[in-house]
Amino acid sequence: MRLRKVKNARERLAQNNNTYYIEDAKIYKGKWQSLFKNENPLYIEIGCGKGQFIMELAKRNPNINYVALEKFDSVLLRALEKAILDDIPNLKLAVIDAESITEYFDKGEVSKIYLNFSDPWPKKCHAKRRLTFKTFLDQYRIILKEDGNIEQKTDNRHFFEFSLESFNDNGWKLHDICLDLHNETEKYPDNITTEFEDKWSKLGPIYRLVAEKK
Amino acid sequence: MRLRKVKNARERLAQNNNTYYIEDAKIYKGKWQSLFKNENPLYIEIGCGKGQFIMELAKRNPNINYVALEKFDSVLLRALEKAILDDIPNLKLAVIDAESITEYFDKGEVSKIYLNFSDPWPKKCHAKRRLTFKTFLDQYRIILKEDGNIEQKTDNRHFFEFSLESFNDNGWKLHDICLDLHNETEKYPDNITTEFEDKWSKLGPIYRLVAEKK
Ligand SMILES: C[S@@+](CC[C@H](N)C(=O)[O-])C[C@H]1O[C@@H](n2cnc3c(N)ncnc32)[C@H](O)[C@@H]1O
Ligand SMILES: C[S@@+](CC[C@H](N)C(=O)[O-])C[C@H]1O[C@@H](n2cnc3c(N)ncnc32)[C@H](O)[C@@H]1O
Repeated sequence: MRLRKVKNARERLAQNNNTYYIEDAKIYKGKWQSLFKNENPLYIEIGCGKGQFIMELAKRNPNINYVALEKFDSVLLRALEKAILDDIPNLKLAVIDAESITEYFDKGEVSKIYLNFSDPWPKKCHAKRRLTFKTFLDQYRIILKEDGNIEQKTDNRHFFEFSLESFNDNGWKLHDICLDLHNETEKYPDNITTEFEDKWSKLGPIYRLVAEKK
Repeated sequence: MRLRKVKNARERLAQNNNTYYIEDAKIYKGKWQSLFKNENPLYIEIGCGKGQFIMELAKRNPNINYVALEKFDSVLLRALEKAILDDIPNLKLAVIDAESITEYFDKGEVSKIYLNFSDPWPKKCHAKRRLTFKTFLDQYRIILKEDGNIEQKTDNRHFFEFSLESFNDNGWKLHDICLDLHNETEKYPDNITTEFEDKWSKLGPIYRLVAEKK
């Protein structure tokens, strides 16, 4: 996400602690439900950017709890600034790097993971940084429930080709693969777009898949 | 392949018996190499149509033996008529329906299978006819060598989405997935086009995958 680093982003996030923004996210490992005060399933988005997608999703599905994860505090601050104009009790935001996701979520605690327009890291030597690289998938497998799954969208062809192979290689069951999501409105009428999706879908197809633990 | 049924196609094929056209293909089960009088690996194309792809492929790779399979004799006759204008000692043609492919090839006899622009059978109730449906994949698995693979190309998005899921579901290892083959000439400089590919590649992307037994 190309955003100028915001001064005092952390402090400004902290001022909103515990409405949306969760400062000490690690202490909720295994206890996210206590934060929402219900037993609803937990869905997370990794790399939520400015949060357009997950805010709309959370509004449409009040019976699901959502946590929006973002690596950069300056970016999450943008999401937070949008969220506070709204009232979305089933949404929390946290600065979390996917690299250490198992420090934040317990075994089987998460029902669904969204990966929307993750950074494609096009160079081969950076393949390990792609959020669908084996090391990430292995961590997702741990925090996902038995019947949990990952929903991925991207406009980046090479990244999607890589992701298909990586899920296949690492023993995930693929379904609902769509190689042109925006020309499939009948099958996916409820698609909620992200900021990146709005920006790039005019230039080429949006790819989508669901990968299930098996 | 929309072709008028040719009168006496079988007879006209038979007249060319044993140069290219193999009439009693079943008797070569387990013995295709004897037909080529060498020990070179055996590659087959299922649904070769008029044969443009496999003829060019065979010419470029004299050290591989090729068998072009086609369900309809009228279609294979077109391929044969083209082949006899040429001299391609490592190519044979046979009328074979993929449905009964294990009656024609022995366990592990085939090193590679090409599926080019197979009929997509778009209706759900016809899914079983798609050449990447489970029942077909299970038969391909039998006739393929341990390290054998299938190379598929198609312009049909829904059929390709289905194929990705079917290979994944049935335990094949996917690699070299390409979602826009004709915009990837650096990675695949040796792509040989088929008749259908020449016709449809202007209208949209050509999809490609390789699926390995594992
Ligand atoms: C290309 S943006 C897409 C943003 C948003 N999902 C969208 O579709 O509009 C990728 C986002 O992922 C975040 N990100 C990258 N690596 C991350 C990681 N390891 N953990 C969490 N977030 C990450 C980036 O900071 C950025 O906001
Ligand atoms: C759409 S055409 C493509 C022809 C050629 N591969 C190309 O790309 O130009 C599909 C071909 O597969 C053949 N075919 C369909 N079902 C088959 C089967 N079960 N076994 C063998 N060939 C089949 C059809 O007769 C037709 O020639």
